[in-house]
Amino acid sequence: MRRPDELRGLVEEHLARLALAPELGGLEDVMRYTLDAGGKRVRPVLCLATTEAAGGTAESALPAAAAVELVHTFSLVHDDLPALDDDDERRGRPSAHVRFGEAAAILAGDALLAEAFRLALSYPTPDVARELALATAGMIAGQYLDVTDGAGDLAAVNLLKTGRLFEAAVGCGLWSAAVPEGEQEPWRAFAREVGALFQLVDDVLDGDGFAARYGDVEARRLADEAAVRARARLRELDVEASALLEIVDEVAARV
Amino acid sequence: MRRPDELRGLVEEHLARLALAPELGGLEDVMRYTLDAGGKRVRPVLCLATTEAAGGTAESALPAAAAVELVHTFSLVHDDLPALDDDDERRGRPSAHVRFGEAAAILAGDALLAEAFRLALSYPTPDVARELALATAGMIAGQYLDVTDGAGDLAAVNLLKTGRLFEAAVGCGLWSAAVPEGEQEPWRAFAREVGALFQLVDDVLDGDGFAARYGDVEARRLADEAAVRARARLRELDVEASALLEIVDEVAARV
Repeated sequence: MRRPDELRGLVEEHLARLALAPELGGLEDVMRYTLDAGGKRVRPVLCLATTEAAGGTAESALPAAAAVELVHTFSLVHDDLPALDDDDERRGRPSAHVRFGEAAAILAGDALLAEAFRLALSYPTPDVARELALATAGMIAGQYLDVTDGAGDLAAVNLLKTGRLFEAAVGCGLWSAAVPEGEQEPWRAFAREVGALFQLVDDVLDGDGFAARYGDVEARRLADEAAVRARARLRELDVEASALLEIVDEVAARV
Repeated sequence: MRRPDELRGLVEEHLARLALAPELGGLEDVMRYTLDAGGKRVRPVLCLATTEAAGGTAESALPAAAAVELVHTFSLVHDDLPALDDDDERRGRPSAHVRFGEAAAILAGDALLAEAFRLALSYPTPDVARELALATAGMIAGQYLDVTDGAGDLAAVNLLKTGRLFEAAVGCGLWSAAVPEGEQEPWRAFAREVGALFQLVDDVLDGDGFAARYGDVEARRLADEAAVRARARLRELDVEASALLEIVDEVAARV
């Protein structure tokens, strides 16, 4: 089983070589700019590690993993827009709408979503694409709740806004390894804990969400609990899951 | 073979009953508002009429037809945004961002696209969804060309911005009737002519595009030529295509 760093290398290489629809023309530059902004590629690496833990090969899951990362990038580009979170920077660089203008950012986000489905549809069966369509609708619903109902149920928002795509990353990994639907739930329970952990750590790092509402100490305590539950779910799976365990540790220790 | 008005009734009924993802919550109201704005439902009716002309039943193509209409509606909602065409009205009602705010309009557009794929993925094979993913990327590329390169090749812009989704409407109808890929090209050539006709008539009605550049008379002449070619493509197909012929007449006579 390959370690997360090696899987991350596969993801970066695949994304760099990704053939986008040729007619996208100049819009491809905007899409590449947002895709290249990098980050730790947690979702696609989680997808590949899941495939390997479930007995498949990471290479077979690369289009699915890339599709998940494109959906994530689409959501960042649109969330950064002035009408939504109004963020001028993303990972130390100007966000897409600051660099290329709002029109280009909106259309680049749209095109990232369309291309994500094209990638997800490169498989002979529709499972990966179905997984992604459901997760995307949920994620958008979470963002809508977040911008319209600041006083609402944070856990419910996070389960939609972050949890759905984490579950889809694991789900796409399972489909790539041909794990039957009836055997997927324990893996998905693990994915939801990793999603909760990721969001809680994010809240502590950004000083919002749970950290803003209940304080850093409480948010960190909830994160630690989610990490403990994620590791327990992995043990229950009873597979060689050292890469997945390492991903949990990385997400928990993120600074 | 049912006439366009009857097929339009099927489309309206199907859209009204459409079960959107329940977690969309309040965002569903925004999506319904934009979907209910109506119009002539040219693309989904074209999809159903194609299925029937190709020997299938319109009912089997309803999810595909609805998916095409959702992609179309997504594009209208985003195109109307201040950063793009900045249109405050759509078919005599306030456009989505005027009625619900920009954040809700951006997210409703995103959710319409995600839901379109969920509908397209309700078929056992990925053909309909693949058709839609390719068309959507092309359509967005056309809109990007349109907002960034006003002096460019109008026909090339229209082929992407309008033509791709018209071809997908026909393509989805063909997949629904199980027409093999190798027999689809003559139908697709017909679809591209209907798309060109639709856009030229649109330009005359709105006073932009070809009408703004070459005058109403020349744009109308080009539209008439496209209608003649569309009818010729239909005759070459050698099927009972009275509904498709009627659609061409309706699009040509649109006021």
